[in-house]
Formats: sequence, structure tokens, C-alpha cells
Amino acid sequence: MKIALEEAEKAAALGEVPIGAVLVVEDQCFRGHNRVIMDADPSAHAEMVVIRQAARAVGNYRIPGARLYVTLEPCLMCVGAIVHARIARLVFGAWDERYGAAGSLLDGFGLGLNHRPEVTGGVLAPECGALLKDFFQARR
Amino acid sequence: MKIALEEAEKAAALGEVPIGAVLVVEDQCFRGHNRVIMDADPSAHAEMVVIRQAARAVGNYRIPGARLYVTLEPCLMCVGAIVHARIARLVFGAWDERYGAAGSLLDGFGLGLNHRPEVTGGVLAPECGALLKDFFQARR
Repeated sequence: MKIALEEAEKAAALGEVPIGAVLVVEDQCFRGHNRVIMDADPSAHAEMVVIRQAARAVGNYRIPGARLYVTLEPCLMCVGAIVHARIARLVFGAWDERYGAAGSLLDGFGLGLNHRPEVTGGVLAPECGALLKDFFQARR
Repeated sequence: MKIALEEAEKAAALGEVPIGAVLVVEDQCFRGHNRVIMDADPSAHAEMVVIRQAARAVGNYRIPGARLYVTLEPCLMCVGAIVHARIARLVFGAWDERYGAAGSLLDGFGLGLNHRPEVTGGVLAPECGALLKDFFQARR
């Protein structure tokens, strides 16, 4: 999660909402951050960026055994992608009360889809949340 | 929707699940199909493919005023992306009772997210559904 936080800081420096992610699969580690604005891509959330990277590297759209660390609770879109990619384990930082789809707004993993990762939320939540809060305060 | 069906047929010919999509924004028309296996990308659903194409072309992750036509009810991931991209109007073909997130499994657009498109489902549903049924039957 510390590396994911470093990635989130990179996003902030680029004017992107500061969210970072790390995906670990076997001995490989993929890191990335939110790049929605710079890529003009509404799907370029941090989770999606590392999932796509890893799937391309593995050569398969499924990445079983993967562990995904992200600084903010995933949204509806990212929860869907996590299921499609068969991510084994999800660890996230801050809860997103408004848009979080891993327990806040809804629990997308509890809908009976064809895969369900193990989930732990709230890891380094104060640090992860502070980055976001500072970013939005500075922009006001 | 006829063009989306043509795209779905292309997907089938490539061994991909036959789902096609068309996105219309102002005088531009983007077409694409499911390419999850060939791209080793769990996020490469037909809707995502055309949304990414269009956002890149427009130079903005938001594509207001866009109309999206897709042969199958979008999943959780695609519903999330449709909201992020601020798609104005969604028209889909067959309902997906198991994974559809625009009314079947759940109505992702009714969760109070920060955007809500106009939605029409069931357009050319028999044709859209038949393509999928034939594809899965042939693979058994």
C-alpha cells in the first residue's frame, strides 16, 4: 500500500485525482495511477491501469492469483473489472462513501457474480484519504 | 443497432463473445466489438472499446451528448464507464439476466451516481440474443 500511495502522489503532481494501485502476480509487480485526464480515458482509473498492464504481460485477460492494492475503495466499473480479471485478493485504503462499490454505496462483490475476491478495506486509510482531501481542498 | 450487430458478428468470427457497439457523438460514429481474448484485456468489452475510442478522438474523458448502442445489456463495469463518460443515451439489445447491470441483476444507473443516461433496452433483442446463443451452442 505504501507503493500505491507513492503512485497516488505522482497522480496528484500531474493534476489527476490522487489514486494509486499496485498489482502483484507471482514475482511480478505492476504499479500505476489514475490517468483519466491525461489519457482522455474515462476508464483509466488506477486499478484498471494496473489490471490492463498485468493482463497484457501475462497474455491472458484472467490473472488468477493476483493481489491488487489500491488507495481508494473501487467504483462500480473497477469492481466489475476486478471480477472479470479474476483478481484473488483486493486490499484498499480509504472508503469511498459516495461511490465505493466494495461495501459503501453497494457491495458489488456480493451480487452473485462468477468470481469473488477476498477483500480487506481501510488499510492506511488516513494517509490514503488525506491525499485526496488535500488535493480537492487545493483545487477549491 | 444493425451496425452494432455487424460488429458482434465480427467478434464471433474472431472467436470472441459476439457483442458489438456503436457510439455516435455529433457527426462522428465509432464502432467496435468485444476483444477481451485477442487483446488480453478483461476490460475490452464492446462498450469500453468504443467509449475509449471516442474519448480519445474528442480529447476529453467526458463525451456529453453521446449515444451508445450495444447488442447486450451492459455489465457492472460498463455501466460504471458509461456514467464516468457522461454518455447521454444508452440503447441496448438483449437483456442479460445473469450479469446485466442496467436493470437485470441490478440497476446501476439508479444508485444515485453523479450521472444518469436515458436508457432503452430490448431493441432488436431476438437478433442480438440469437447471435450469443448460437455462439455458445457451437462451442459446447
